[in-house]
Amino acid sequence: MSRNANSIRLAVVPGDGIGQEVVAEGLKVLAAALPADVALETTEYDLGARLYHRTGETLPDSVLDELRGQDAILLGAIGDPSVPSGVLERGLLLKLRFAFDHHVNLRPAKLGPGVTSPLGADAQIDFVVVREGTEGPYVGNGGTLRTGTEHEIATEVSVNTAFGIERVVRDAFARAQARPRKKLTLVHKNNVLVHAGHLWTRVFNQVAAEFPEVTTDYLHVDAATIFMVTQPERFDVIVTDNLFGDIITDLAAAIAGGIGLAASGNINPAGEFPSMFEPVHGSAPDIAGQGKADPTATVLSVAMLLEHLGHTDAARRVEAAVDADLAERASLGTRSTSEIGDAIAKRVAG
Amino acid sequence: MSRNANSIRLAVVPGDGIGQEVVAEGLKVLAAALPADVALETTEYDLGARLYHRTGETLPDSVLDELRGQDAILLGAIGDPSVPSGVLERGLLLKLRFAFDHHVNLRPAKLGPGVTSPLGADAQIDFVVVREGTEGPYVGNGGTLRTGTEHEIATEVSVNTAFGIERVVRDAFARAQARPRKKLTLVHKNNVLVHAGHLWTRVFNQVAAEFPEVTTDYLHVDAATIFMVTQPERFDVIVTDNLFGDIITDLAAAIAGGIGLAASGNINPAGEFPSMFEPVHGSAPDIAGQGKADPTATVLSVAMLLEHLGHTDAARRVEAAVDADLAERASLGTRSTSEIGDAIAKRVAG
Ligand SMILES: CC(C)[C@H](C(=O)O)[C@@H](O)C(=O)O
Ligand SMILES: CC(C)[C@H](C(=O)O)[C@@H](O)C(=O)O
Repeated sequence: MSRNANSIRLAVVPGDGIGQEVVAEGLKVLAAALPADVALETTEYDLGARLYHRTGETLPDSVLDELRGQDAILLGAIGDPSVPSGVLERGLLLKLRFAFDHHVNLRPAKLGPGVTSPLGADAQIDFVVVREGTEGPYVGNGGTLRTGTEHEIATEVSVNTAFGIERVVRDAFARAQARPRKKLTLVHKNNVLVHAGHLWTRVFNQVAAEFPEVTTDYLHVDAATIFMVTQPERFDVIVTDNLFGDIITDLAAAIAGGIGLAASGNINPAGEFPSMFEPVHGSAPDIAGQGKADPTATVLSVAMLLEHLGHTDAARRVEAAVDADLAERASLGTRSTSEIGDAIAKRVAG
Repeated sequence: MSRNANSIRLAVVPGDGIGQEVVAEGLKVLAAALPADVALETTEYDLGARLYHRTGETLPDSVLDELRGQDAILLGAIGDPSVPSGVLERGLLLKLRFAFDHHVNLRPAKLGPGVTSPLGADAQIDFVVVREGTEGPYVGNGGTLRTGTEHEIATEVSVNTAFGIERVVRDAFARAQARPRKKLTLVHKNNVLVHAGHLWTRVFNQVAAEFPEVTTDYLHVDAATIFMVTQPERFDVIVTDNLFGDIITDLAAAIAGGIGLAASGNINPAGEFPSMFEPVHGSAPDIAGQGKADPTATVLSVAMLLEHLGHTDAARRVEAAVDADLAERASLGTRSTSEIGDAIAKRVAG
């Protein structure tokens, strides 16, 4: 995929529930942040519950082909109670992550200014989780036998490769190396899941030899959840598998002020495929359409998108605007989704 | 297994690290709590790192046979850095849980009087996790291919059966039914692990029909970690699979005042095999032998043991003694492992 530095072809997938509302604010801020000489060309794709009910499709091949030609994807949220659990998650969200080889699922957790952590005012939270995105228990291997009977057996197969682990571990080491504290923690469960766990550990230790400046640590996933609520300052960069990463990044979001602030990037580092940026939160159907959703997670995902596409200054300006907005929130009372988006966009532009 | 109500044959497995120290205090309290007409016959088994280094064995068949004839097992902690990760965990601890069909892994989380939660003084935490103990990703199925090379592939197979899920779900419903709030939450990840997740969900809904008084809820495991730190009062009884249960019970211990207070029972409800009681914490080799370990989790595990063996009054007295001790801790300064054990035993006896 060759990219023109002066234009961005952006696929927009608002998806379900609050996805629509938060993506609108993300686009507002993106427009305000982009340098004047960069042209933004957005194409919206109506994927999710509506398409599924209309046609039975989750991600038509033609759409997948079109998405392939874009520079990046901005996604709102996927999932609706009217669709059986798993259909949209596997058929759309995970299909995109796997099809576009998003092996680095990047999820920062940083307590913003003025943000209250459930751990109290003194909590020090500033770490980033590098979650593997294309392997592990998420591969969709497995099945059922004697389905629907009292003798049913269901299996799930976690598939882990040295190739897949090495590339994400290397990415995490490079990120740790670039941060002031230079610390990388591997999170797994290598005392129980010995096959996958030992492979992760072996590859981690091999790559570590190439990054002598990076301090390394290992934690079982259960212990990691303890430290996350008792000593979050212990973490700088974490690398972990797809499922453990899913779990600990929701916990990380909760301690860092809530899921309304947690951004993520599903990244294909080499740029062979478009990377995808999305808030960590879900579609929250209970508050959809009411202007109650916090668009901040989407706005911060837009900052990650800008950074990924090389617009580092613009990314920093979006982050600074979010920080300024967060710092004032306590004194502002309840604002609507678009009021928050407007306020951040205004700061970015000004 | 037939049991004499006036005697307890107890297997004691102190294990590694602080296991020795905390088990000694557990036994002290057990002796103080038992009714005078109940004879306690303990047999100690030296399993763990020492045996492994001496003989290469983790759980000799002869020991397994002897354990089978006991009424219960009290276990300290298993695991030592001198033994490769997984050897003792799989070869001893998990082998016991599987051999004795400990399918109900019971882990209460309750904020004791005077105990400080990282979530603050107002946190309301009083729930119990029923973790499945004999299936899921813990079965040890899986393996490696092209082992040790850059082309290595490692798999882990989660095996889930309607039979295994139904019995633990039924146990959890019965526990929820017996509690004032009568609420049961299923925790899984049925939008990604669709085979196992849908089986869990189907069986859960089927059994729910038999317990119309119990309010039910479902949460994805990632969302469950969020609620655990933002709304722990939401939980009453949780039922979940082996791996998710491992993760969320460490988190539950952390919010309920720390892993030093978290008890567990590996229960074979029908009594075909001895049930096993152990603190949730590990062997903590860094503080082993220094009298620094908190024996409270082991003492509370002894209360679960008493309850399981039908000595309900004695169990309640141990719990009350622990509560009284906890309530005074803040004013007492640092005490050693045995000082805490002595204090609790004295309260139980008095
Ligand atoms: C919706 C779901 C498939 C997804 C995941 O499990 O990865 C979500 O929880 C996330 O973390 O992005
Ligand atoms: C030591 C380990 C095998 C064990 C587990 O994973 O079950 C422990 O973490 C626990 O929770 O009892």
